Amino acid sequence: MAGEGEFDFIARRLAPLTQGHTGAYGLKDDGAILAPPSGCSFAVTSDTLVEGVHFPGGEDPFKAGWKALAANVSDLVAMGAEPKLYVLNIVWPKGGFETRVERFVKGLAEAQAAFGMALVGGDTTSAEGPWTLSITAFGAVQGTRTPRRGGAKPGDVLLVSNFIGDPYLGLQQRLGLTLFNVPAHSSFVEQRFATPSPPVALFSKLHHYATAAIDVSDGLLADIGHILDASGLSATIDLSDLPLSAAALDWVSRQEDEMAARLSLATGGDDYEIVAAVPENFVRRFSSECAQIGVRITRLARLEAGSGLDVSFNATPVQTGALGFTHF
Amino acid sequence: MAGEGEFDFIARRLAPLTQGHTGAYGLKDDGAILAPPSGCSFAVTSDTLVEGVHFPGGEDPFKAGWKALAANVSDLVAMGAEPKLYVLNIVWPKGGFETRVERFVKGLAEAQAAFGMALVGGDTTSAEGPWTLSITAFGAVQGTRTPRRGGAKPGDVLLVSNFIGDPYLGLQQRLGLTLFNVPAHSSFVEQRFATPSPPVALFSKLHHYATAAIDVSDGLLADIGHILDASGLSATIDLSDLPLSAAALDWVSRQEDEMAARLSLATGGDDYEIVAAVPENFVRRFSSECAQIGVRITRLARLEAGSGLDVSFNATPVQTGALGFTHF
Repeated sequence: MAGEGEFDFIARRLAPLTQGHTGAYGLKDDGAILAPPSGCSFAVTSDTLVEGVHFPGGEDPFKAGWKALAANVSDLVAMGAEPKLYVLNIVWPKGGFETRVERFVKGLAEAQAAFGMALVGGDTTSAEGPWTLSITAFGAVQGTRTPRRGGAKPGDVLLVSNFIGDPYLGLQQRLGLTLFNVPAHSSFVEQRFATPSPPVALFSKLHHYATAAIDVSDGLLADIGHILDASGLSATIDLSDLPLSAAALDWVSRQEDEMAARLSLATGGDDYEIVAAVPENFVRRFSSECAQIGVRITRLARLEAGSGLDVSFNATPVQTGALGFTHF
Repeated sequence: MAGEGEFDFIARRLAPLTQGHTGAYGLKDDGAILAPPSGCSFAVTSDTLVEGVHFPGGEDPFKAGWKALAANVSDLVAMGAEPKLYVLNIVWPKGGFETRVERFVKGLAEAQAAFGMALVGGDTTSAEGPWTLSITAFGAVQGTRTPRRGGAKPGDVLLVSNFIGDPYLGLQQRLGLTLFNVPAHSSFVEQRFATPSPPVALFSKLHHYATAAIDVSDGLLADIGHILDASGLSATIDLSDLPLSAAALDWVSRQEDEMAARLSLATGGDDYEIVAAVPENFVRRFSSECAQIGVRITRLARLEAGSGLDVSFNATPVQTGALGFTHF
């Protein structure tokens, strides 16, 4: 790290991100001391993002920093945990520190403010290789019970937060496709792709009502498959039920094969929204409480005994296998 | 990861490393639930090791896995924390999974058994780049007080555990030098370099007696410098007081410039031993309790008001600056 050494980087750039959290010791020690709030446990999750794999090569470092934190936050929310603290490990590419550091730290700072988090520790090094960001994030959970992949019961209802598919469109746009005539749609899907905002406030509703939950990172259908596999249940998702933003609806309306278009949105991934299973008799209350905190909830399916995910479109079965869609 | 997919790798290879820890959920979820033992906080530390930077390219993956965990364990011990749990993030080099996975997991398994730890989560991915291992480790601390770099007081005594310098000799040997006529010495320094064993049992003694502590990773003198800087104190270290193993003593005895040889041992780093400051009136009790748990303690210096580290050899000042030794 020419120009700005490791200690300078930590003291000048990263220490302010601790927001004075006492256990972080101003990042001057080799570790931090963390105690969950009274009556709580920590939910802990960890994601590694590699430049060129998990975000595009040459990405604005602001967006890389934001996305690295968002990817962890959405896991915490799915666990019914309030995002609190994080540890950051960085491998800088040789010669790639000076060009990235300022925008990266700005992106982290804005993301942690948006998500209510503070930095408590980590490690920074450099190597001949791609820029690599590992974050381990801590959330507070009341007691020790959390919704898990495997907790859903037959009869529970599968629900999803906000909109699905915008990040897929954002990625296609990054790859050079012109998708929209409306500039606002274009910037909306870019923002949903590059600086996703998981529905943080949802954590307490999931803690109270959800029997199972997962964040949508692999793709809506794949992540529903994870819940079904772990819970030993089956479901049918109708692609006409996908909750789509105005931008996605506009795009779908101009596609020749609407079913294929919707399947792309349901499998694209990187949504960082939440799929949850909620017992039928709580669905109305859950949805209404979510609406009050600004999170839109859409009903996708009723979970049934059996195994596997079936997909339909306007009630006609879709042969997902024939589309090379073989995850489950 | 050709042949063995990510899910197989996690289920077959990594899940057994959770040792059934309930909060790990068998590594089937996106996160873990952790609560410190009653009356305790978590000490949290994190280290990233990159192949070719922090361990040699082509290293036996058993040794890489061991060392990645050991590097974190020594930070926890220095914080007076009992090592408990860890989260593991791996970036495999493209095509480098099959050749590394078996020995790597074996090294992790043996290291965690030696250190009393269990795996609770993480992330695994692959990229065009060097093999990268990030570990975030959790230790249990009674209450929230820990020895820190900045806690030492004038009059406290600076002490070090076991031996210093063997890993430096292990590295020189790796670089092709023949250092020993005695094969046992050769294998001893290799083992101290490649599979270091931090003095885990020391954690409770440090918690009770130490005002400051740090693990020796940058090099004994550099890490003492960190304590002096953070505590606002000064000290003089005499190189004749270095605690040396039989192997290191044998090597030193055959060097033309004994002072330079000892300085190399005191600055080589990667020792993963502990330097601690203990009030004078507790030093005898601390040392005797450490001896009972098999940890040898050596007195290095009395901490004084002022700033900076002076180095001497047989009571004659050493001009470390002239040796290109300018860290402090």
